[in-house]
Amino acid sequence: MTQKAIFYHAGCSVCVDAEQRIATALDPAAYDVEIVHLGSDKGRLNEAEAAGVKSVPALVIDGQPYHINFGADLSALR
Amino acid sequence: MTQKAIFYHAGCSVCVDAEQRIATALDPAAYDVEIVHLGSDKGRLNEAEAAGVKSVPALVIDGQPYHINFGADLSALR
Repeated sequence: MTQKAIFYHAGCSVCVDAEQRIATALDPAAYDVEIVHLGSDKGRLNEAEAAGVKSVPALVIDGQPYHINFGADLSALR
Repeated sequence: MTQKAIFYHAGCSVCVDAEQRIATALDPAAYDVEIVHLGSDKGRLNEAEAAGVKSVPALVIDGQPYHINFGADLSALR
């Protein structure tokens, strides 16, 4: 059974790189990764913030946020 | 063919969590992940720093550093 993981990004170069290297590199047998662009899907900002996401790019797995390098603060996307 | 990835950590709780959630979650068909404890293997500090690692936990894939959350500065491990 796969577990849900959500990768939040904002289209920045740091985000795109992390998406390619980490988010899409997770074991497909273990994780089902949803990619969410918070710049174009601002309706998901509250959900990301509630999960503890402070900046993008970030992965949320099992409710825990994992910030990968630094692209932009979440507050800059509102 | 698998690609080499190196996960640098220092045994901290943030490190252990990132190891379990990200480093060991990479697709085993695509990545061969080596786990390096920089607290007990200080001989690898220069190599990590040369790859651009500033803090642990961090993954280095294809020569690029990906810092995952923040556990400790590399300088604190010397």
